[in-house]
Amino acid sequence: LTEDEFVAGLREMCATAAPEKLVLGIGDDAAVWRPSRSNLSVITTDALVEGVHFTLDAMSAEDVGHRALAANLSDIAAMGARPVLATIALGVNVRSDAEWIRACYRGMVALATRSGCAIAGGDITRSPAISLAITVVGEVRPSNVKRRAGARAGDVIAVSGPLGASRAGLGVVRDFGARVNDAAFAPAIAAFRRPEPRLSEGRWFGASRNVHALMDSSDGLSTDLARMCAASGVGACIDTVPVHDAARAVAAVAGDDPESYALDGGEDFELIAAIAPRAFDYLAARYRARFGRDLLRVGTFTDASGLRRASGATIALAGWDHLRQ
Amino acid sequence: LTEDEFVAGLREMCATAAPEKLVLGIGDDAAVWRPSRSNLSVITTDALVEGVHFTLDAMSAEDVGHRALAANLSDIAAMGARPVLATIALGVNVRSDAEWIRACYRGMVALATRSGCAIAGGDITRSPAISLAITVVGEVRPSNVKRRAGARAGDVIAVSGPLGASRAGLGVVRDFGARVNDAAFAPAIAAFRRPEPRLSEGRWFGASRNVHALMDSSDGLSTDLARMCAASGVGACIDTVPVHDAARAVAAVAGDDPESYALDGGEDFELIAAIAPRAFDYLAARYRARFGRDLLRVGTFTDASGLRRASGATIALAGWDHLRQ
Repeated sequence: LTEDEFVAGLREMCATAAPEKLVLGIGDDAAVWRPSRSNLSVITTDALVEGVHFTLDAMSAEDVGHRALAANLSDIAAMGARPVLATIALGVNVRSDAEWIRACYRGMVALATRSGCAIAGGDITRSPAISLAITVVGEVRPSNVKRRAGARAGDVIAVSGPLGASRAGLGVVRDFGARVNDAAFAPAIAAFRRPEPRLSEGRWFGASRNVHALMDSSDGLSTDLARMCAASGVGACIDTVPVHDAARAVAAVAGDDPESYALDGGEDFELIAAIAPRAFDYLAARYRARFGRDLLRVGTFTDASGLRRASGATIALAGWDHLRQ
Repeated sequence: LTEDEFVAGLREMCATAAPEKLVLGIGDDAAVWRPSRSNLSVITTDALVEGVHFTLDAMSAEDVGHRALAANLSDIAAMGARPVLATIALGVNVRSDAEWIRACYRGMVALATRSGCAIAGGDITRSPAISLAITVVGEVRPSNVKRRAGARAGDVIAVSGPLGASRAGLGVVRDFGARVNDAAFAPAIAAFRRPEPRLSEGRWFGASRNVHALMDSSDGLSTDLARMCAASGVGACIDTVPVHDAARAVAAVAGDDPESYALDGGEDFELIAAIAPRAFDYLAARYRARFGRDLLRVGTFTDASGLRRASGATIALAGWDHLRQ
C-alpha cells in the first residue's frame, strides 16, 4: 500500500462525517469551506503523544482517536461555539500500523459524526512516538463568544458536571492490575478513555448573558480555575469540590483523597462557568431540565486574588504542566 | 519557568504577527477571527518531525520554524488563497530547550509576519522527538479557488520556478562535510533551510481563468504531477525538467543526475499550474513582468494516462512517500 492508497482509504472513512459546509474535503492542497454569515470563526489545536498523554496498553486505537478529538471539541465548547471541521496531523511509528491507524480514525470519525464536525484534512508521517495533533474550527454568533476573561467578583463558580473521574480511570488502568475489570471501576475507565466534550452545554452557556466567562477543565480544577482567575483579574473561593462518584469509588480503593482527583487530575472536559449570582438558581433549574444533570456550584469568584477554601486555606496548584510532566 | 509563564513569552512574540482579522489570539480555549464576507475559507495541516524531516545538525531552530510554516503556506498558495492565521502544535523533547523553542518561534513569526498571517494558537507538549504540526487557515474568493483537479488534455504544465535546489541543499548539508561552507552551495542550502512559499504567485494564478489547476511541488515533480494527473483524469508529457542552477552545481560535485533532484527531490514549494495553451505565452510575459522570474514550461497534459517524456519513455515515481521513508 502506498501513502496515496492508504490515505484514500482514510478519506473514504472521513466522508461519512457530515460535510455540510465543506466545499472541498480531503485530497487537495487544502480543504475549503463556506463560513456562516454573521458568525465568528474559532480555532483550537491540541496534541496527544504516546508515552506522554497515553499508552497503548491503557487505550485502544479508537480510544486514542476519540480522546484526541474530544480534547479539541471541548475547547470549541468552552468558547460557546459549535464545531465545523477538524484536521488531523498523525504521526505513526511503524508501517505495520495500518489497522491501528484505521481504528484510530474510526474513533475520531464516530465522535466527529455525532458532533456535526467534518474531518476535512490531515497529514500522516513517520514519528518516533504515535502523536495526534488535531485542529478544530468552529463557529459562534459574536454575542455568544465566551472568554476566560469576564468572571466578576461575586459570580458563582459552576461546573457542568462532577470532576475527577478521568484521573481515577487512569489510576485504575495503571495501578489496579486484574481488578481493572471490576464493574465498579467501569465508569471511571470510560471517563478516562472516552471523555465526552460538552458541546451542547457549551452552546447553551454561550446563549446566556448571565454566563460571564467559560473555559473547559482539562488540566485540573485548581490549575484551570487559577487561569480563569488570572485572565479575569479575580480570585476564587471554593466551597465544594464536586467529586465524581466514579472518582470516589476508585480513591477509596487506592487510599487517595478523592478531592485531589478533582482538583489536580484534569482531562475531565467539563466546563467551568462564571455565572451572575442572581441568575444561578434559575440557570441551574433550566440546566437540569435540559441536560438531566446538575449544574454544580463550586464557590464564588472574589476580589482577593488567589484560590482559597471557604475555611480560608489556600489551594496549591498541582495540576498538569505540559512542559514539566 | 512554568508552562503558563513560558507560553506567555511565546504569546508576546506572536503578537507582532499582523492580527488584523483576529478578534482573540493566543491565551483562551480557542482563537477567534472574523471571516471575510463572500470569501471561502481554506485549511491545511502539515507536520515536521525531527529525524524524519529534519535533523538538528542540518537546520537551526529558526530554520525549522520557518520551514514548517513555509510548507503550510505553500499549500494555501496552491489553492489560490491568502493566509489568515496559523496554529502550532509543538512537541519538545527536553525541558532545557527553552531557547531552542523561542528561536523556532522566531523563525515562524518572521515568516508569518511578512506573509500577513497571524499566529493565533498553539499547544506545547513533551514528545520523544521535536515535532511541529502546523495548521494554516486562508481565504479566497470563490471564483479564484484552484484545485488539483481541473487540468485538461492540451493544457501547458508550468512551474513557478526551477526545481531541485532543496534536495541539493539537503545533499550538501548531509554529505559534503567541510565543503558545506563553499559559497557555490549557499543557494542550495538556503533553498533547503528557508524555502519561500509562493504566496503572491498563488494568488496571481488564482485570479486567472486560464489557470485550470494548481498544486504545490512538495514531494517531487514526478510524484506531484502524477497526483495532479490522477485528480484531473489526464496524463502528462514532460518536455523539459526545469532544474535549478543550485541543483546543477551540487549534482556536478556529487556525481548525481541533476534532473533526479527536480523530479524526485521534493520540498521545492514551487507551484505547478495547468494553463490553457493559447494563454500561456501571454501569462508567461505577465508573470515575468510581475515577479521578475520565468514561468517555466515543463510539458503538456495529455489524454493518455501516466507520466512520459517527449521521447516516449515513462517516468518512474521516486518521490517522497511519507509512510515509506
